[in-house]
Amino acid sequence: MSERKAIVVGAGLVGSVLTILLAKRGYEVVVYEKRPDMRAAGFVGGRSINLAMSDRGWKAMEQAGIHDEIKSIAIPMKGRMMHDVSGELTFQPYGKEGQAIYSVSRGGLNLRLLELADAFPNVTLNFEQGTRRVDLRNKEVHLPEGKDSAPLIFGTDGAFSAVRGSMQRMPRFNYSQQYLPHGYKELHIPPGPGGTHQIDKHSLHIWPRGHFMLIALPNEDGSFTCTLFLPFEGKESFENLNTDEEILEFFKTFFPDTLELMPDLVNDFRDNPTSALVTVRCKPWQVDNQVLLIGDASHAIVPFYGQGMNSGFEDCTILNELMKTYEDDWDKIMPLFANSRPQDANAIADLALRNFVEMRDLVGDPQFLLRKKIEGWLQDEFPKEFLPLYSMVTFSHIPYSQAWQEGQAQDELMEKILAMPGIEDNWKTEEVKEVFREWHRDRDREEKTYSKPREL
Amino acid sequence: MSERKAIVVGAGLVGSVLTILLAKRGYEVVVYEKRPDMRAAGFVGGRSINLAMSDRGWKAMEQAGIHDEIKSIAIPMKGRMMHDVSGELTFQPYGKEGQAIYSVSRGGLNLRLLELADAFPNVTLNFEQGTRRVDLRNKEVHLPEGKDSAPLIFGTDGAFSAVRGSMQRMPRFNYSQQYLPHGYKELHIPPGPGGTHQIDKHSLHIWPRGHFMLIALPNEDGSFTCTLFLPFEGKESFENLNTDEEILEFFKTFFPDTLELMPDLVNDFRDNPTSALVTVRCKPWQVDNQVLLIGDASHAIVPFYGQGMNSGFEDCTILNELMKTYEDDWDKIMPLFANSRPQDANAIADLALRNFVEMRDLVGDPQFLLRKKIEGWLQDEFPKEFLPLYSMVTFSHIPYSQAWQEGQAQDELMEKILAMPGIEDNWKTEEVKEVFREWHRDRDREEKTYSKPREL
Repeated sequence: MSERKAIVVGAGLVGSVLTILLAKRGYEVVVYEKRPDMRAAGFVGGRSINLAMSDRGWKAMEQAGIHDEIKSIAIPMKGRMMHDVSGELTFQPYGKEGQAIYSVSRGGLNLRLLELADAFPNVTLNFEQGTRRVDLRNKEVHLPEGKDSAPLIFGTDGAFSAVRGSMQRMPRFNYSQQYLPHGYKELHIPPGPGGTHQIDKHSLHIWPRGHFMLIALPNEDGSFTCTLFLPFEGKESFENLNTDEEILEFFKTFFPDTLELMPDLVNDFRDNPTSALVTVRCKPWQVDNQVLLIGDASHAIVPFYGQGMNSGFEDCTILNELMKTYEDDWDKIMPLFANSRPQDANAIADLALRNFVEMRDLVGDPQFLLRKKIEGWLQDEFPKEFLPLYSMVTFSHIPYSQAWQEGQAQDELMEKILAMPGIEDNWKTEEVKEVFREWHRDRDREEKTYSKPREL
Repeated sequence: MSERKAIVVGAGLVGSVLTILLAKRGYEVVVYEKRPDMRAAGFVGGRSINLAMSDRGWKAMEQAGIHDEIKSIAIPMKGRMMHDVSGELTFQPYGKEGQAIYSVSRGGLNLRLLELADAFPNVTLNFEQGTRRVDLRNKEVHLPEGKDSAPLIFGTDGAFSAVRGSMQRMPRFNYSQQYLPHGYKELHIPPGPGGTHQIDKHSLHIWPRGHFMLIALPNEDGSFTCTLFLPFEGKESFENLNTDEEILEFFKTFFPDTLELMPDLVNDFRDNPTSALVTVRCKPWQVDNQVLLIGDASHAIVPFYGQGMNSGFEDCTILNELMKTYEDDWDKIMPLFANSRPQDANAIADLALRNFVEMRDLVGDPQFLLRKKIEGWLQDEFPKEFLPLYSMVTFSHIPYSQAWQEGQAQDELMEKILAMPGIEDNWKTEEVKEVFREWHRDRDREEKTYSKPREL
């Protein structure tokens, strides 16, 4: 058994990236994936799930060596386009000029990562080999037939991880799975004439409706992948949308401008499954400095901050940097990573839950829109002192936990500013700047400014 | 299959009480327990784990018909006896004159409940029949050999419940298991000459030492069952107590007055296992109005409020009352119980975690002792308006969640009172009463007084 052998359980997005990074450092990597090889079928574009790649994800693409290639087929979304019930549009930029999040197809990305991994002579990909369990004492992966072992085993097998399942049987393993009362269903806006986009290509479209919402992300072929987030039970809910009439009536009432965009609405609605939204947290993430969970396997989160894939990819880049710093001494790397990273995973899990409220409810609120405008102005006025929470999470590599802490302080600041008399009419004032400066001095004293990254 | 058949999985304390209550209402009850019949070996008194029975538990004993019998062999503990490092004692009553919690032996109680259950012609007890899983669709209990089914299945199989294990595979099952960094180990104080108790018989003894503590509960034979609660890792921890010398030195430093009470200390310490402390929460508790989790199976808690068994027994009495009210219509009973009871289970779980800090840390704090005295006085002065949190939990049947809410309001009140100048010298004053009256008026306005029990 090679000292430099590593087993990767699960060849999804995170498992594929980790495999590439390990292969680049010279490890012999053996991958076990329970699904068939997606390359055999070839990638069918268009209708697969879309993801929003942002800075943390791009860093992993860089380290994997496919940043430029993926960026050339990703679609920049510069902001949110809100659709109100009357069909009126409002645009909110995500960041400053030139900043965007990128719509990428999960299937296309995964396929490309697998091809790249397979090109390494020191990588072996095994498909239709679902891991049943891991013998944590002997570091053995039990497969449908036979078993394999290695001094390093990585569980990148997602929210329902079999590797984590084995760890759950250890004494004193903390574990939690929490579902939202909401489910989601994928829908589809086909391309317009000549493969054009029927609504703005460079926006993430949101139809916020209080307790529920519809979103749409652009695809290269002119179509949009839509997702309806709706409670399972209650007045407006999946349980009350059964007949064609009920479905159509619901969309007519709440999303009237989508009806002509989605000619297959009723069929899509009935054919596509309704899926649940889970947050998974656990600790410890590692066993004996040899077995480690990353990605959804240790921190599945809800999709509302667009950070599920990005946080999993950041796990990979942090591990990559630790391998370099500690020259592949996993007795140092594993404890460092597994003791520090969970607090960041918890922070982005909390932020993602909080952002659901923002997306479905607040983005239509005038007070919220005012806050966003003031934040943008403060960022212009104090570019070194103020980075809004969304930008810290999306366009920086500041640890999530630090961003969340800073974000809570920003909440206090903005509450103060929004309580100033007449603020809605006049906010580009010296008084607002003075409130900011005072807040910033206090933050400095607390030594918690975002500009001081926490040590890993 | 009889319409009135019920399967009870697990014949521990809660399972036995539920079986008796179901049998009394005429159900055909079939019980499957994975351990051997404890009656075969006979009950060996003395060294088993002790529990503190309080009002909620006694109510179940009443409904099961063995209140008087159990009370005659239970030992009232009227308060906490704190032992400081120098051996000095301080006594704190738990409630008013005549109020006490009762030390009972888990083994003795379980044995008696089993005998009682077995006396019903409509009860069948099966031992060494561990449930592997429950087929939730077909309502079948899968046993080592064969299976059994019933229209009602109760999971009373404890913190590591197999019934819950089957429910965890359902979509959208929320689940959490959280361990404390502390473990516990049982120790023993033997009887004094002639079966006398070497320390006060009618107290729960506590040696609070900040991050850890020792406690002792009296047994009928003159002995005490002791439990050491200590972190697994760190400076003072189980991992650092390995040799005889380390163990003795630790007790000499922190519990010097126990050395002569525990002649077998070192052997007990090495022979007895170190166990973990878990809090389990989950939801939903029931499936299809037919399968229900109660007791530790759905809400295992840490032992620091003495409410683990009591809360499980309260599950039984609430179900018993619902059976009477709704004439065994489980389509009404199950949703009512399973939608309302988890908030009480969550409240006592939180309270138990909080009480660990109180027991190991605060009981030696002068400010805390002052607070307890003022609370006692307020209760005397305003017997209808003020019931301290501990009494609500221990000596009442107020729903836990309501007690916890009221307790948080009491925290605010006491904070105000303890901040009054010179309070430590003079607290039986008109000013303190005025602060209380104002607080109470505010509470009344909020319509949250503890005297208004929440509807189930």
